[in-house]
Amino acid sequence: MTADADRVADLVEHVEAGELRLHELADHTDSDTAAAVRRQVVATASDADCEAIGDYGFPAEVAEPNIENMIGTVQVPLGVVGPVDINGGALDDKRYLPLATTEGALLASVNRGCSVINKAGGATARVTKAGMTRAPVFSVTDVAEALALVEWVRDNETALREAAEETTSHGELQDVTPYVVGNNVYLRFQYDTKDAMGMNMVTIATKAACEVVESETAASLVALSGNLCTDKKPAAINAVEGRGRSVTADVVVPSEVVDTLDTTPEAIAEINTRKNLLGSAKAGALGFNAHVANPVAAMFLATGQDEAQVVEGANAITTAEETDDGDLYMSVSLASLEVGTVGGGTKLPTQSEALEILGVAGGGEPAGSNADALAEAIAVGALAGELSLLAALGSRHLSSAHESLGR
Amino acid sequence: MTADADRVADLVEHVEAGELRLHELADHTDSDTAAAVRRQVVATASDADCEAIGDYGFPAEVAEPNIENMIGTVQVPLGVVGPVDINGGALDDKRYLPLATTEGALLASVNRGCSVINKAGGATARVTKAGMTRAPVFSVTDVAEALALVEWVRDNETALREAAEETTSHGELQDVTPYVVGNNVYLRFQYDTKDAMGMNMVTIATKAACEVVESETAASLVALSGNLCTDKKPAAINAVEGRGRSVTADVVVPSEVVDTLDTTPEAIAEINTRKNLLGSAKAGALGFNAHVANPVAAMFLATGQDEAQVVEGANAITTAEETDDGDLYMSVSLASLEVGTVGGGTKLPTQSEALEILGVAGGGEPAGSNADALAEAIAVGALAGELSLLAALGSRHLSSAHESLGR
Amino acid sequence: MTADADRVADLVEHVEAGELRLHELADHTDSDTAAAVRRQVVATASDADCEAIGDYGFPAEVAEPNIENMIGTVQVPLGVVGPVDINGGALDDKRYLPLATTEGALLASVNRGCSVINKAGGATARVTKAGMTRAPVFSVTDVAEALALVEWVRDNETALREAAEETTSHGELQDVTPYVVGNNVYLRFQYDTKDAMGMNMVTIATKAACEVVESETAASLVALSGNLCTDKKPAAINAVEGRGRSVTADVVVPSEVVDTLDTTPEAIAEINTRKNLLGSAKAGALGFNAHVANPVAAMFLATGQDEAQVVEGANAITTAEETDDGDLYMSVSLASLEVGTVGGGTKLPTQSEALEILGVAGGGEPAGSNADALAEAIAVGALAGELSLLAALGSRHLSSAHESLGR
Amino acid sequence: MTADADRVADLVEHVEAGELRLHELADHTDSDTAAAVRRQVVATASDADCEAIGDYGFPAEVAEPNIENMIGTVQVPLGVVGPVDINGGALDDKRYLPLATTEGALLASVNRGCSVINKAGGATARVTKAGMTRAPVFSVTDVAEALALVEWVRDNETALREAAEETTSHGELQDVTPYVVGNNVYLRFQYDTKDAMGMNMVTIATKAACEVVESETAASLVALSGNLCTDKKPAAINAVEGRGRSVTADVVVPSEVVDTLDTTPEAIAEINTRKNLLGSAKAGALGFNAHVANPVAAMFLATGQDEAQVVEGANAITTAEETDDGDLYMSVSLASLEVGTVGGGTKLPTQSEALEILGVAGGGEPAGSNADALAEAIAVGALAGELSLLAALGSRHLSSAHESLGR
Repeated sequence: MTADADRVADLVEHVEAGELRLHELADHTDSDTAAAVRRQVVATASDADCEAIGDYGFPAEVAEPNIENMIGTVQVPLGVVGPVDINGGALDDKRYLPLATTEGALLASVNRGCSVINKAGGATARVTKAGMTRAPVFSVTDVAEALALVEWVRDNETALREAAEETTSHGELQDVTPYVVGNNVYLRFQYDTKDAMGMNMVTIATKAACEVVESETAASLVALSGNLCTDKKPAAINAVEGRGRSVTADVVVPSEVVDTLDTTPEAIAEINTRKNLLGSAKAGALGFNAHVANPVAAMFLATGQDEAQVVEGANAITTAEETDDGDLYMSVSLASLEVGTVGGGTKLPTQSEALEILGVAGGGEPAGSNADALAEAIAVGALAGELSLLAALGSRHLSSAHESLGR
Repeated sequence: MTADADRVADLVEHVEAGELRLHELADHTDSDTAAAVRRQVVATASDADCEAIGDYGFPAEVAEPNIENMIGTVQVPLGVVGPVDINGGALDDKRYLPLATTEGALLASVNRGCSVINKAGGATARVTKAGMTRAPVFSVTDVAEALALVEWVRDNETALREAAEETTSHGELQDVTPYVVGNNVYLRFQYDTKDAMGMNMVTIATKAACEVVESETAASLVALSGNLCTDKKPAAINAVEGRGRSVTADVVVPSEVVDTLDTTPEAIAEINTRKNLLGSAKAGALGFNAHVANPVAAMFLATGQDEAQVVEGANAITTAEETDDGDLYMSVSLASLEVGTVGGGTKLPTQSEALEILGVAGGGEPAGSNADALAEAIAVGALAGELSLLAALGSRHLSSAHESLGR
Repeated sequence: MTADADRVADLVEHVEAGELRLHELADHTDSDTAAAVRRQVVATASDADCEAIGDYGFPAEVAEPNIENMIGTVQVPLGVVGPVDINGGALDDKRYLPLATTEGALLASVNRGCSVINKAGGATARVTKAGMTRAPVFSVTDVAEALALVEWVRDNETALREAAEETTSHGELQDVTPYVVGNNVYLRFQYDTKDAMGMNMVTIATKAACEVVESETAASLVALSGNLCTDKKPAAINAVEGRGRSVTADVVVPSEVVDTLDTTPEAIAEINTRKNLLGSAKAGALGFNAHVANPVAAMFLATGQDEAQVVEGANAITTAEETDDGDLYMSVSLASLEVGTVGGGTKLPTQSEALEILGVAGGGEPAGSNADALAEAIAVGALAGELSLLAALGSRHLSSAHESLGR
Repeated sequence: MTADADRVADLVEHVEAGELRLHELADHTDSDTAAAVRRQVVATASDADCEAIGDYGFPAEVAEPNIENMIGTVQVPLGVVGPVDINGGALDDKRYLPLATTEGALLASVNRGCSVINKAGGATARVTKAGMTRAPVFSVTDVAEALALVEWVRDNETALREAAEETTSHGELQDVTPYVVGNNVYLRFQYDTKDAMGMNMVTIATKAACEVVESETAASLVALSGNLCTDKKPAAINAVEGRGRSVTADVVVPSEVVDTLDTTPEAIAEINTRKNLLGSAKAGALGFNAHVANPVAAMFLATGQDEAQVVEGANAITTAEETDDGDLYMSVSLASLEVGTVGGGTKLPTQSEALEILGVAGGGEPAGSNADALAEAIAVGALAGELSLLAALGSRHLSSAHESLGR
């Protein structure tokens, strides 16, 4: 994007003179000029070249809801794998999967898994639970008052629901679960947020409900998030109870297809047990998989999801077993995949196109079905990655694959 | 990037006829043309528009080590906060921090934290431990043989070191720790990988060491990674023992500066305890912080780190207390921040510029110091984010900030 | 207990000749004689003296529901602390607490805590959640069938409840929560078991419900316990959702009382944060306390609870803070205290007397109130132990107390 | 034990008049009389009968190092299983295992497992790691000082060792590992404590080392235990790094022996995966086993171990697989079994006899070998329990076994 050079120089001078701060530029000029000014200020201060950063492909104004102090964009390589056959509850079709990454060998690996899935007739995928959560923490006098609050909440869910839902046209409050720790009461609000990932929606709705709690009880709100949500931290509560979508993808790979991978169902099952189950158990891990975080992060990045939610989005258990017929059954169950097809980064130009590649851009019909479909697609991508890596481990190809592709 | 339209159309035809696969295009044409062909194939299959994706700012060839089946790039908004005063062991200067994100309000929040840090005279940062790990799993006959392997490893570290270090000019094997689970033995190799994040380096080196183990003992290698590494899964072993860099940033904010945030050291300490410590404890979390994953993910993305490693990179404990003088002490300790300034995504055009903004691009002097500096900068970014959010929670501004900026 | 010497000698001969096995003795003689025979066989085989073991104080027959292959008893020193003022929901009185232990200094420590609690006017205690769980695991074909089972369960809770409750006169099925991992579905059944700890009751009831699931759906029962119960393993699901009783005890200790402990509310709060919160966080712990397991184990042992359930019974979070008035607020929240006052070991002579000391032997009025009261008493014992140890740590007396009392 | 009735009555009067406290009785009369007085006071206060409690089989004086405020003993039914063939590193023989419990069906189950082990030619057992830990927490000014302390510790291990070992004739300091969280530094001291469980020994030794730290550095000791030890809390640090003994027992059960259990190696492996691995993974558990806590608790109780350490003692991973020959391989790996054969409760009359039954009472030759042997015996007991329960689950006998034996 271009900006008037004189105007830029003038504003840079003001900033460097301490008369203007970087974030105040937005009030004095258009978004692209402001970005140009910041680039120059930063470049001068650091001796950095900011040319590539400034070579972005859309008006900076478009990104205003997504960032402050913008100086340009980071360009991350984007590729596709597939198309892969998905037999989902919301997405029942063949689709290319878009992945953005800087890690060589990843797409080759996932692509290989997609081929296997296709030869097996496709992967089944289902969202088995859904709900976005926010868990404020209240302080009370003592446990007697804590118990009174727990009981009050049980008796007043309707009032809380009304207050919460008044703030949103889409969200529906599904449940409020109380947890007591001494003189702290955590209320975990869970909502159906349809096609939105929903963090902002549930924060606003929960804030309204908290006002009811504070006005009707003796409890005092400490923080709108009391970390039992749990957002952007690995947490057992998400692994157990789910957050966003809980989604599983699985596949039965016929033994003759496994043959072509130079391994056996038995060997893959054994590796899965020794590495993904026993190894993770010994590591005190919350994830029992090989590298689910790779496709999850890459598809999150491609489709404008919140990259920080890879933390819990990648929480997954991989299973592998030889079936009675001698075939390979494999599954990946992601407990807390927080995804949306509206809001957040989904409207940015490249991200929106990536959602279109998946056929899930914008609101779905019925509402929520596009986010379900996205969750299913990511789960299948994760399954493809696990399938490929476990097979590769079986054949001891990991390191040599990295040697040639990765560096 | 432009590509010859006829050539593209011709190749598209071949692909759609099933004569060529997407990943085989690389063998038949240049990288940019191959990407154009893939875009058109994908666009046709999905009715997606891939124009923005195709509007990338560097020769596709540049990204060859980073991705396969490339169709273009995802452009993620990039901004800066600061400059912020960092009193680090490797980075002792004022720096702008580059963050790439799609989550509105994030940079404003971190920026506010940077201002507070500056008013406090800067943040202290130190890398307290460093080492990249890879933990292959071997199967043995029984626990008697397992114990024999454990003892063999203790007696043969020199042989393992020689084999491992022969594969690398930079990496140094620091330690091999054995773990036994039934007839499985996990050997956690730990290396000094200098300025590289080092995953590939340690994979290759460990593979060489494993060959020694297999040739000298009865043990059989099951997988080069047995999940005790632990890579891209939240795992206590990383939280306890570290992986990559263990780094802490802290700051003492004078009470009069805290005043300007409309809160008190005592209130911030209380919120930190009720939310970040007790809330996370009750949630069964491996992270005891507010939103460290946000700045970590954004700085990883900006600087070409592996986004999937946000999973463990965000593993952090935040502390807050009122000092004897009535000031606010706050710290963030990240246990397993896997970062590098060479290799991986760090050489891509925009990512390389972001590293330059931090002044840490390429190999450091001495080796490893640039990656240390990057770790310190990210830790300070995380500290700024925690400081800001905790203060905002205190003032109950979270939700309203999101209302205006978020979506 | 005495047994006829000739009869014993005769049976010993048969056993040593391999004609009778130890557990078959029960079919050939009375319980005390059988025990005597086993003692002699064991003593001969091991050169051990079994005299003290044989010097038990009740007819061996009494212990028949509790053990097989009995040879006598282990005698564990039993003491009391208190009496302590308990302001509970079920137990609102002053009580001596019975503790059985072999660890010197423990009762002295808990007793000191009880004194402090009394000076503070007593401890408040409440059961905030209750329910005993059993979680069978079923295998299904794939995730599509898994989701179908989840939906079937939601639609058929009545049928499950009827089947389950037909097996018990006391237990009430409260809830069934499904969890999906690949082709495995875990159904967590939760029951109100009144004054019984309830493991056997819920195992039998759940077995009946599982028969309905198997006859009405395609799912196949793999194990009556699929480890999501979770019994006798430290598990986040219990820490988060509770099992048995979730119970909290707390107290406000006036500053002048804290003075007499040679410490301050502030110092105790600081130690609690650095040790119980931050230390446990860094350790990857599921327990955030100092030594709650000590009084829990000692009171479990005294009152005939299942000692193996100390594993999850000791899962507790301790909080400490200085109040606005400068006093000390402390609490202990136990998430999963599985206790009963009927069944199991509660009817044994010494254990039954210990329950009488607490005034909670047998079924309560209303049903469940005695087990609630026992939970509250244990929570107060745990609080007393935490209070005492944190104060001692503050005064750095731990080690010297152990030196004089410990061994 | 008998006590003079008049003397008792007289002292009871003094206590009830408030002139004497229960714990002061020890200064005014012998131990048995003091216990009788306490029994009467407690009985009067609670309407409890304390007759069985008072019917203990040794002079109360004997228990003085183990308890304060003694009123008698709790008598827990004790039985034996086996003898079982143990092919251990320290214990290579056939032994009866003593178990104390109130849970019917437990010994029958473990005994069945022992029979299977014997038919398989015995179980192999090995201690793969050993060391008792204590981890004080120090506070420092900031992370710069924290790093300085870490480096000081690395440079001064000799001084710390000398100070620590001066306090003990047996203990040897093996290692000191530092962990940093903000302005807190945890030093995990690890010792070889020979045949003692060693908690008191290492507490005293670590206290001496802490004095050196405090006198030589700016760090200030907050607590002798900073919870990274970790004692009596389920903690990943123990599961990963071990505490006390890390011990594994395993067995290969020939297929024809498995046949007699009405199940197959394949079925047992499948149940182990679906229940112990996947179920525990989904539960966020630190234990991946069926009921290891049962035999551990029962053998701890029988042999005078610290019952509260069942919490981490039961931390175990069970594996099961079909071997290439179609047999069943099973193992149990206990990460942190804190056991001793001297000190603590091991000298009490019944407990000492139970140790004799195992042939491991007192100090071993060489030092430490008796505690190693005890660890191996417990591991084999745990293996027997797992084997039996998994087989029973396979045959769906769990619930019916409980119905007949349980209550």
